[in-house]
Amino acid sequence: MKWDELADQQCSMARSLAVIGDRWTLLILSDLFLGAKRFEAIRERLEISRTILTDRLNLLEQEGVLRKQVYQERPTRYEYKLTSKGVELYPVIMTIVHWGDKYYAGDGGPPILHTHAKCGKDFVPVLTCSECDEPLNPRETFARKRPKDPRFPAVERGPV
Amino acid sequence: MKWDELADQQCSMARSLAVIGDRWTLLILSDLFLGAKRFEAIRERLEISRTILTDRLNLLEQEGVLRKQVYQERPTRYEYKLTSKGVELYPVIMTIVHWGDKYYAGDGGPPILHTHAKCGKDFVPVLTCSECDEPLNPRETFARKRPKDPRFPAVERGPV
Repeated sequence: MKWDELADQQCSMARSLAVIGDRWTLLILSDLFLGAKRFEAIRERLEISRTILTDRLNLLEQEGVLRKQVYQERPTRYEYKLTSKGVELYPVIMTIVHWGDKYYAGDGGPPILHTHAKCGKDFVPVLTCSECDEPLNPRETFARKRPKDPRFPAVERGPV
Repeated sequence: MKWDELADQQCSMARSLAVIGDRWTLLILSDLFLGAKRFEAIRERLEISRTILTDRLNLLEQEGVLRKQVYQERPTRYEYKLTSKGVELYPVIMTIVHWGDKYYAGDGGPPILHTHAKCGKDFVPVLTCSECDEPLNPRETFARKRPKDPRFPAVERGPV
């Protein structure tokens, strides 16, 4: 299968990138995972304009990635909380953080350490196969179009 | 620890997003992982302007994520190949694809299936802990600032 026959990939890829494929959005999500909740706090920390922050938060709310909760009346103030759809972006954020820690952290090493409560150790995230639990190496994975007729599953080796 | 004391996180996060935190760049990377190699092919498939594609490829080359290789002289034509730094973005792309497949694939399900050559099965990617191999649940992880003085490692629960 040639790569351009894999165009359908762009379907869900392009649609999700329309929601999260933006520097500010990914930084906002990263902050939410670190516990940020309030508009002003996020705005100040990211040094982001109100317009951009409002725009990004509205899109994330509209897409069901986060929800607003009133925490103060007169004037009304909201907190932003990740929904379960939003929490499922944890792997996206953590894999970016891990790549950044490796290539862009500078001499001091990663600025933030992550601890796994379950085992009590500092960890880095590892992407594994759901079927055999082994770490995934892109050179050992294939991509193929979902067969319309399962009798002819045109399988071909991935390219990397 | 309050979340805004985790600001240093933005160091490597913000720097990596300056390279890959862009919808077009992530789509280009996704295509490279599917085997795309040539400028015109990528341009046609993504329906992207020459200017944007040139700009994004140049940045990725400059940052050592991909390299250009001549495949034709007169006129000179290049192929783009992921470096090992680029290949290490596989987890980022796959976690976005997986999230997109779950929430944006539509009724037909994921358009592309991924097979793990090592076990021979179709898989979805699972993010696990490097130390205990268990799947990572953000509710079971902590983030803390890398201690400057290891005698005082101010640990505090993550927020999600």
